[in-house]
Amino acid sequence: MINNEQLAGLNKAIADDDTLTLERLVTEIQPADLAEFVRHQTTKAALKLLTYLPLEERADVFGYLKGVTQCELAEKMTETGLSQLFVYMNSDERADLFNELSEEKRQNILRLLAKEEREDIRRLASYEEGTTGSIMSSDYVTVITKTNIAQALEVVRHTAPNAETIYQIYILNAEQQLTGALSLRQLILAKPEAMVDQVMTTELVSINVAEPQEEASRLISRYDLLALPVVDDNRRLIGIVTYDDAMDVAEAEATEDMHKGASIGPSDEGFGQATIRNLYSRRVNWLVLLVFANILSGAGIAFYEEMIETYVVLVFFLPLLVASGGNAGSQASTLMIRGLATGDIDIKDWGKLLARELMVASCLGLTMALAIMGIGFWRGGIEIAQVVTYSMFIIVIIGSLIGLTLPFLLVKVGWDPATASGPLVTSIADIIGVLIYFSIATAILTF
Amino acid sequence: MINNEQLAGLNKAIADDDTLTLERLVTEIQPADLAEFVRHQTTKAALKLLTYLPLEERADVFGYLKGVTQCELAEKMTETGLSQLFVYMNSDERADLFNELSEEKRQNILRLLAKEEREDIRRLASYEEGTTGSIMSSDYVTVITKTNIAQALEVVRHTAPNAETIYQIYILNAEQQLTGALSLRQLILAKPEAMVDQVMTTELVSINVAEPQEEASRLISRYDLLALPVVDDNRRLIGIVTYDDAMDVAEAEATEDMHKGASIGPSDEGFGQATIRNLYSRRVNWLVLLVFANILSGAGIAFYEEMIETYVVLVFFLPLLVASGGNAGSQASTLMIRGLATGDIDIKDWGKLLARELMVASCLGLTMALAIMGIGFWRGGIEIAQVVTYSMFIIVIIGSLIGLTLPFLLVKVGWDPATASGPLVTSIADIIGVLIYFSIATAILTF
Repeated sequence: MINNEQLAGLNKAIADDDTLTLERLVTEIQPADLAEFVRHQTTKAALKLLTYLPLEERADVFGYLKGVTQCELAEKMTETGLSQLFVYMNSDERADLFNELSEEKRQNILRLLAKEEREDIRRLASYEEGTTGSIMSSDYVTVITKTNIAQALEVVRHTAPNAETIYQIYILNAEQQLTGALSLRQLILAKPEAMVDQVMTTELVSINVAEPQEEASRLISRYDLLALPVVDDNRRLIGIVTYDDAMDVAEAEATEDMHKGASIGPSDEGFGQATIRNLYSRRVNWLVLLVFANILSGAGIAFYEEMIETYVVLVFFLPLLVASGGNAGSQASTLMIRGLATGDIDIKDWGKLLARELMVASCLGLTMALAIMGIGFWRGGIEIAQVVTYSMFIIVIIGSLIGLTLPFLLVKVGWDPATASGPLVTSIADIIGVLIYFSIATAILTF
Repeated sequence: MINNEQLAGLNKAIADDDTLTLERLVTEIQPADLAEFVRHQTTKAALKLLTYLPLEERADVFGYLKGVTQCELAEKMTETGLSQLFVYMNSDERADLFNELSEEKRQNILRLLAKEEREDIRRLASYEEGTTGSIMSSDYVTVITKTNIAQALEVVRHTAPNAETIYQIYILNAEQQLTGALSLRQLILAKPEAMVDQVMTTELVSINVAEPQEEASRLISRYDLLALPVVDDNRRLIGIVTYDDAMDVAEAEATEDMHKGASIGPSDEGFGQATIRNLYSRRVNWLVLLVFANILSGAGIAFYEEMIETYVVLVFFLPLLVASGGNAGSQASTLMIRGLATGDIDIKDWGKLLARELMVASCLGLTMALAIMGIGFWRGGIEIAQVVTYSMFIIVIIGSLIGLTLPFLLVKVGWDPATASGPLVTSIADIIGVLIYFSIATAILTF
């Protein structure tokens, strides 16, 4: 992190146009920290600071900025300046930025770039967002099968400065198909005269370019990979996904799932920078939908109006009974959703999980029924105690089973199970809770 | 993933004791996939399969198993077999396993190991769980400052097979203090006769061994590191944390936060393998606590018993009004909690966030008040419409502000903000919602 002294120094140097101090300071500070600093500056100050950085470091710092900030700055840069930055940026990041620029800016930038880079940008920018193609990089080292170790090492030395990672070298056959890989570790340990295909690993994990980016992230995490090769339908190598991008995807996915779990829509903007409009539109839809779901609970209660008038004490227990069903249901749905997301459980284990949940929920329901029994007796006598005890037991079980079942059903119809959010499960459990409670009350109190 | 043919082959070969087929199959399958297969076997079959693997691969597959499974298998292995495995396991993983073994097993294993390994295990196993020390590894390469590039490369070649990562080489001074680092990339690009301290990077990100493991994971993600050096209070290098462990920590943290968000206690066991007892004990405490919180809502309603008897229609709107406050509150608390966890927002921005939330919540409250106005009129006439419209507007705003404030207060008193779970926020919002609703009803209906 930037310390206070560095922070004061940076601010003063920018205000004073003190180039020398700036140049010294920026070498002391990590690119990620400089990016954090840049993010909090006005566009003008940010651009000024960036121009003091040597191109390679400028591209590095720029790469750590969020998409929105990158775009704002890029639109204000000179076209020559931006095209220079494009040359030094990581291939995956520049393709993302390219997609965000205005049409005019895009055309002008492409015109200023060399043919090879132009084609690379066009190609990487063409993959649909959310696919592995959209996060892959074209910076990697390849050699063909008929190469020896010494030659391969030369290729690595030669390409190193432009490769996002040189720690995996991919071996292609004459059709550009991926046939093996060598880690840099294997390379420096092998005899220089050995052929690469004698030393290479052939049991490779790879991914098709059209697969979702979460799958790429999951594979990297599962197999502890530094980089995952991306192939097309003919097994030709067309890119790699690196572990740091996989970490970002995993973080973004977890955030999205947590937000869905609280009925909040997805967004590229972080919470810190989000506008009022963005937050409003992500939250309002579900809130309004849930109001209409909860009208059903109200209608359920209204249906038992007469009974409530006779036994007003029933209303005392209403919130805690329906809330308990909702809470138990949220727990079950959250366990299920996260288990599916991390690959800890498989959707086909659902029968087994349901049987176990029935046991767990019975124990929970029993505990809570006992906890509430005394209060029922105290507030309303023996009959009310019976009503609330039985209701609690059944409501907790039903709530839990709904929580476990809803994500399963969503998967079955091809939706994201994370949509079975806490508030949705709670609303459904509320309605059912109301019906169970008053049915039991009717049965016990009116006979 | 293992394909069906391989799966059938493995099962048959184990049943038939067909060593040759087994040996062929295990070379085709990724260690992580073999581990997955092992996990679903009986202890006996798992041990049989493991013994067919060469030691190095056996340790690799074993390392991919979960702690609970590792422990079960280790307790059944011969002590010689287990001590051999210990020699080949990653230093961080074997220290974790060591901590889980029975006292007798531990002593016997230590006796069978060489002094160096014994001390390494004792040292790594001594760090408190949850600290950086508890996840660090002692497998890394160091050279002293007075070394040239050619010598450093020799050290790398020599230590490579035992180092979890050789892609970062750490440079120590005479006091074993961390003074710089060289990536393998820098090493192979530099002139062989240059001295390491001429080429090395000195602006290093490092972490103190006592810091929480989440901080290590956060640093690795923030600075896109392959490995993070761990130092003691005297800046002596004592370990490294690798990116793959950081990914595991980040995933486990996200899971824990999601579970907390649904009032579920933490656990080392995954959901898929968890026992009924484990799930019951993680869920029951909060459920029962929340029952007592909801009794307050019930008491609030009971306090207005007379009014309810006079205007039974008020009960119809009760669930949707209190649920809306709770839902808006869950949204705000989830945004806040996740923003804090990912470092997207800082606790000191809270004033600014609160002001923005007030705007967002006002818009949400207004929308929902308008959505409910007509229904209020339809069910109860003009006065009831007024009551529910005003109530909705205020309840949504108050609920949102509670959701944003609760995580903030928890951080201030030094608790985990993720404890401000959906169900907790909902319960608090419910109580306040009941009071707001009936206060407004009293004001409008009884004057």
